[in-house]
Amino acid sequence: MQITSEYLERVIEQLAKLPGTGRKSAQRIAIHLLKQNDEYALKLANAILDLKNKVTRCSVCGNVSDNDPCKICENSKRQNGIICVVEEFNDVYIIEKTNEFRGRYHVLGGVISPMDNIGPDQLRIQELLKRVGGDEQIEEVILALNPDAEGEATSYYINKLLAPYEIKVTRIAYGIPMGTELEFIDEATLSRAFASRNAF
Amino acid sequence: MQITSEYLERVIEQLAKLPGTGRKSAQRIAIHLLKQNDEYALKLANAILDLKNKVTRCSVCGNVSDNDPCKICENSKRQNGIICVVEEFNDVYIIEKTNEFRGRYHVLGGVISPMDNIGPDQLRIQELLKRVGGDEQIEEVILALNPDAEGEATSYYINKLLAPYEIKVTRIAYGIPMGTELEFIDEATLSRAFASRNAF
Repeated sequence: MQITSEYLERVIEQLAKLPGTGRKSAQRIAIHLLKQNDEYALKLANAILDLKNKVTRCSVCGNVSDNDPCKICENSKRQNGIICVVEEFNDVYIIEKTNEFRGRYHVLGGVISPMDNIGPDQLRIQELLKRVGGDEQIEEVILALNPDAEGEATSYYINKLLAPYEIKVTRIAYGIPMGTELEFIDEATLSRAFASRNAF
Repeated sequence: MQITSEYLERVIEQLAKLPGTGRKSAQRIAIHLLKQNDEYALKLANAILDLKNKVTRCSVCGNVSDNDPCKICENSKRQNGIICVVEEFNDVYIIEKTNEFRGRYHVLGGVISPMDNIGPDQLRIQELLKRVGGDEQIEEVILALNPDAEGEATSYYINKLLAPYEIKVTRIAYGIPMGTELEFIDEATLSRAFASRNAF
């Protein structure tokens, strides 16, 4: 077979390394890029370079940020003394969208997962303890990890480490999602919803 | 809600414009890029820029190429006098992989599609007629368009335009794909397979 464009091959090869993108999707994206005006490709390429060159991590909360500390840690209008612990920076984005939480965040950078060789030391757990024991006057830590096996295990682990500090440790409520019907809910969720029932 | 990284937002926004990529996939890709080493992001960004700056179209066959004419048009070892007409450059790639066809190509750049406002004038049909009437001494044109309504209509249209030239016009065989069972084949394909039956 004959390849007429090495450059096209190269971009397909690189695109195919992206998560959820096989050779066929990579080809489709490359075709799309070829057909677009130059401006879009330039914007995309520069956005990718900026992402690597200009985005850093906030040294306080671990969130991705263009500045250190990040805008949330720096914002004097946000509530002090309450930290929401999440797995990754995109969880911050998801929670921020609700406008429900006005406190501070702490991004772990993952969860404990022996299968993936991720232990507590690879997560920002020590940094969390330092904040709780430091001068932020923390009163409450909300655990908002994903309700899967790793998230649960990590929540228990952190809860245990926080026991010596005299603060409230809470977790977001797991239960029936709004707008669904009971018959479509799995048993584990339904059990959790019963165990966590509230006064009406 | 508070955005801590404008650069991250920007790359997600650009990635979400890619075909088959919504905001969620774009976020996942951005997270992946953030976690990768710098070298990969640099390679990807440069590959995208090269795609736009260095890839051109072959003025003979319309295929994407780093040079004009392309390697296939230029290759003296390929069979002269036979042109395979395809919709897009990725069809060339697919056909080349089979190592079945050793002639020349002609890339239309699409198919006639009134729904998408694509008429014959937006396709490289006049260029095909010029090649057939020119000094390439064309003996056969193989139509290898997709077997959908637009592909069929375009094939008929081109076949009609080629009638005045005294050449063979053929099309690739449409029928039962190898390795499948008859019960899984749609009626249109099965009808076509009967109509196109060959001597055993």
